Amino acid sequence: MSLLLSRRDLDFLLYEWLHVETLTKRTRFADHARETFDAALDAAEKIAREQFAPHNKKADQQEPWFDGEHVHLIPEQKVALDAFCAAGFMAAAQDAELGGMQLPHVLEQACHAYFFAANVATSAYVLLTIGNASAVLTHGTPEQIGAFAKPAFDGRFFGTMCLSEPQAGSSLADIRTRAETDGDSAFGPRYRLFGNKMWISAGEHEHAENIVHLVLAKIPGEDGKPIPGVKGISLFIVPKKLIHADGTVGERNDITLAGLNHKMGYRGTTNCLLNFGEGSFTPEGKAGAIGYRIGNAHQGLAYMFHMMNGARIGVGLGATMLGYTGYLHALEYARGRPQGRAATAKDPASAQINIIEHTDVRRMLLAQKSYVEGALALNLYCARLLDEEKTGDDEIARKHATLLLDILTPIAKSWPSQWCLAANDLAIQVHGGYGYTRDYNVEQFYRDNRLNPIHEGTHGIQALDLLGRKVVMQNGAALHALGDIIQHSIRNAATIAHVEVNAFAHELSTRLHTLFDVTKQLHGSGDVARTLANATVYLEAFGHIVMAWIWLEQATIAAQAMASATTEDAAFYHGKLQAARYFQRWELPKVDAQLALLAALDTTTLDMQNNWF
Amino acid sequence: MSLLLSRRDLDFLLYEWLHVETLTKRTRFADHARETFDAALDAAEKIAREQFAPHNKKADQQEPWFDGEHVHLIPEQKVALDAFCAAGFMAAAQDAELGGMQLPHVLEQACHAYFFAANVATSAYVLLTIGNASAVLTHGTPEQIGAFAKPAFDGRFFGTMCLSEPQAGSSLADIRTRAETDGDSAFGPRYRLFGNKMWISAGEHEHAENIVHLVLAKIPGEDGKPIPGVKGISLFIVPKKLIHADGTVGERNDITLAGLNHKMGYRGTTNCLLNFGEGSFTPEGKAGAIGYRIGNAHQGLAYMFHMMNGARIGVGLGATMLGYTGYLHALEYARGRPQGRAATAKDPASAQINIIEHTDVRRMLLAQKSYVEGALALNLYCARLLDEEKTGDDEIARKHATLLLDILTPIAKSWPSQWCLAANDLAIQVHGGYGYTRDYNVEQFYRDNRLNPIHEGTHGIQALDLLGRKVVMQNGAALHALGDIIQHSIRNAATIAHVEVNAFAHELSTRLHTLFDVTKQLHGSGDVARTLANATVYLEAFGHIVMAWIWLEQATIAAQAMASATTEDAAFYHGKLQAARYFQRWELPKVDAQLALLAALDTTTLDMQNNWF
Repeated sequence: MSLLLSRRDLDFLLYEWLHVETLTKRTRFADHARETFDAALDAAEKIAREQFAPHNKKADQQEPWFDGEHVHLIPEQKVALDAFCAAGFMAAAQDAELGGMQLPHVLEQACHAYFFAANVATSAYVLLTIGNASAVLTHGTPEQIGAFAKPAFDGRFFGTMCLSEPQAGSSLADIRTRAETDGDSAFGPRYRLFGNKMWISAGEHEHAENIVHLVLAKIPGEDGKPIPGVKGISLFIVPKKLIHADGTVGERNDITLAGLNHKMGYRGTTNCLLNFGEGSFTPEGKAGAIGYRIGNAHQGLAYMFHMMNGARIGVGLGATMLGYTGYLHALEYARGRPQGRAATAKDPASAQINIIEHTDVRRMLLAQKSYVEGALALNLYCARLLDEEKTGDDEIARKHATLLLDILTPIAKSWPSQWCLAANDLAIQVHGGYGYTRDYNVEQFYRDNRLNPIHEGTHGIQALDLLGRKVVMQNGAALHALGDIIQHSIRNAATIAHVEVNAFAHELSTRLHTLFDVTKQLHGSGDVARTLANATVYLEAFGHIVMAWIWLEQATIAAQAMASATTEDAAFYHGKLQAARYFQRWELPKVDAQLALLAALDTTTLDMQNNWF
Repeated sequence: MSLLLSRRDLDFLLYEWLHVETLTKRTRFADHARETFDAALDAAEKIAREQFAPHNKKADQQEPWFDGEHVHLIPEQKVALDAFCAAGFMAAAQDAELGGMQLPHVLEQACHAYFFAANVATSAYVLLTIGNASAVLTHGTPEQIGAFAKPAFDGRFFGTMCLSEPQAGSSLADIRTRAETDGDSAFGPRYRLFGNKMWISAGEHEHAENIVHLVLAKIPGEDGKPIPGVKGISLFIVPKKLIHADGTVGERNDITLAGLNHKMGYRGTTNCLLNFGEGSFTPEGKAGAIGYRIGNAHQGLAYMFHMMNGARIGVGLGATMLGYTGYLHALEYARGRPQGRAATAKDPASAQINIIEHTDVRRMLLAQKSYVEGALALNLYCARLLDEEKTGDDEIARKHATLLLDILTPIAKSWPSQWCLAANDLAIQVHGGYGYTRDYNVEQFYRDNRLNPIHEGTHGIQALDLLGRKVVMQNGAALHALGDIIQHSIRNAATIAHVEVNAFAHELSTRLHTLFDVTKQLHGSGDVARTLANATVYLEAFGHIVMAWIWLEQATIAAQAMASATTEDAAFYHGKLQAARYFQRWELPKVDAQLALLAALDTTTLDMQNNWF
């Protein structure tokens, strides 16, 4: 039994649900077949298991440290990352002409799932790099791509995203890093950057030849002052070491590691405060970090959000896989730990049973299964949308995919961050006291996963994004696109020959209608503060309804596949149906209280006063 | 602003709600007055703040370590514990003739609240000792009390409870430690113990002259074999060092530290695997740990549960105070951290506001307030019941208190362990990325608190205790006693001149009736496995209803006190009312889905099969 990810589940999601084989009919993926997809998954599983998983605990226990000049990391990380790059995973989804495998995104994400499950902290170095290089690829000039994205996809350079500052986290409008013009260059308009960037994951290390920072900064306006708000923000490529015009690596740029952040978990990823332009280095003879502007001035945030949206789905997948591996660890433990007897057992001298036989332990395992398998399905669905956005049959299909991605991104980020952390909590509980010790793995998963509701937009920020922007954008086009898709699933599930799935469809339909009504009520309040006051409750109810849909989809397929299934497959489908049943009966009803609260436009939190605390 | 506990809140609970001053009319507390109560609280606050809090982080970062012979602990712990003992807190609630302050339990617990908030791990040494010595006091002989309990109340000896073994955690019936008769002694029937005890908190240290272990073990039956089940369990006093008949400390007993457990949190408390009778020491010339039986043979579990019930309420208070101090930390941070602007703010150049002004942050603070103040109120209510049990006016009052304590203990243990951990989660979230770092305190509270749903009976064990035992004991006498008390509060709240409190009373009444109906349905299923299948959901719904009652009580008082309140007091009462409102509107409705699931006698978890996972 794999402790990373159930391949049977992955095959179900990819081939029985998302029909990813059909992608091979598209020109971009014409060289692929199920065999090449499977080979990529096999390779990911093998490298994750053999190179990433073994040092997961060690990287936690031997936290990176900074001697004032160098950051020290355990050597196993670089070995693993080199294996990842050597196998071509850095460019898995990229064009063949860039040296990529030209795999669909959904397959790339399925491969990433293995690495996240094995070692989320080591994986972060390369997965951030992929996002970084993809942003350069999308918005950069050919010269920028050649100098900074290509070496990243080749595995030579790693990348970061530098948004936050000590005084500006969620409020990016308040960043102070400034970029002063410094002439032109082979890589576009050149600037000198000055400022401090906080929470920079993978911001310093020696795992790669160079680190390419993508940095948000403000170019002073005509009055010499930074333009207030997000409108003044531009995006810059700021490499740790300068690149010569011929692509070779040159002198150190003016970027200094001010310190490492010491975290509760996710410790294997260095997280840094970086000082730009403080004069510790004087590239080309003077202080100031040299950076190259990407695209137009003052449009940096929009460019960065290309990377950020991918990063948010990546955070969701990381959260999912921490939950998933925790679930498998708990399952293995529960199957092998004898303790106690059945509630009906009379003889105290009878043998103990394995704890998986206790209903409450099964509850905890079933809850985990419903959270982690559901979250993985949602993440892969989003990745499948990325492929549709890129290679969909026509403009309409591609725009439709973009709309769905827009509205599902806050869910794909926040739902796993909340519920797969809850899964990790349950995985500890299944282990009892042992789960609370560092001799087992689950306490680390719990600590690692606690980061996910915070970074790349906190839970509350996702809520404001969903309720304040996504459901109303383009006159509600994204909301209605999603509603239509869910309605389609409901109609389908309502007609199959399976009474329980039919009932599930009906129950989801009721909640979906209420959600639409509530959305209208909230935006009809005429008071933006009141509309947004309970955005987080809205996000959570919305997320549970989306997840119920994801489970309805899985249940529909499982119910239909059961008839002709082998014994082994039948057990698998029974498991899917039971997890769907759990979600229907135990989880979905939770939204009723939330929707009622929202419908009442409750002002309890809005009315609370500072001096009443 | 105290970061440990709001004294205004404590005064409200003790004096305005529980009317603890009236206890001074009872003979046992006749020497006390509000002034002496307040002096005890002042002393506790001062020692907690000055001696316990400053090394809380250090004790986490410099975990105890074992050199093979000695356990090393940071020296600040002993200084703090000495101060605690010197101030008389070890015997705060004990008889004056034992050197105690003869304080009511409710005051003792209020004092403990400060220590838990300041440093839960250091506090554990003395709070376990108080429970240990109280058990000896209740069930031991005068000689046992003199030799083992008295020195503990004097602060010379510390104590532990040794129940679990590596193969027997929740299932105490399966312990293997055996006790062989070894003649008589000044301290009662003597035995030699052989076995391994796991998860022993404070099991080894050099903070005190001696460590008194209370150990569960089995005396072989007439066939030489241990009696199966819990019926074969007896309780023994097994000191680390033997005591001479004159009370002086003698040679080492045959108890060896096999190893320390390395935990996610709560690190300052040593947690040990202890080997009894492995022959490392040979007290009085031979191997075997010398122990003295407490009370009758084979009744050990009942005696131990005297201590265990106290320990469970203690766990609840510890969980509460970790949540409470986390809340105060988050509140202080939110009041001082500028970030972003109001949803209605148009000008991006306007000054940032402190995050407490953001509604979502207020939501997180208000949720924490409702959890931690509610949990503290419940814990103090239980402590007040301990006083009633001991000093109530008559037999009926005392038995009534016992019944209420019986049924409330699983709630007082489990509810804070669940919801004050949730409060710690929110405290991290309020801090954003900073909360995830070890530079701040809240991540430690979260790690520390995660132990509480596990030890002294897991969450699931509390659920079985409540549904399988407490609500049906004595034909439902405890359940009905609690129901009557809650109904009394509801009637009272329904009649005051405050529309919102009236409505709250009505809403609680509805849920209370459903809870009673559901209890009947569950126990009427005729199938014990089905009755108990969803015990955890029952525990959680029951807990939320109890907490709604606790908040209704507080709201009733606050609403009435508002009329004649000073400005400062009015703000406090507004806060109480708003937290009650939060609980009524945001939390209580969560039970509806739970009660519906229970009423349906849902079998989703019961039906799940091992091979379907």
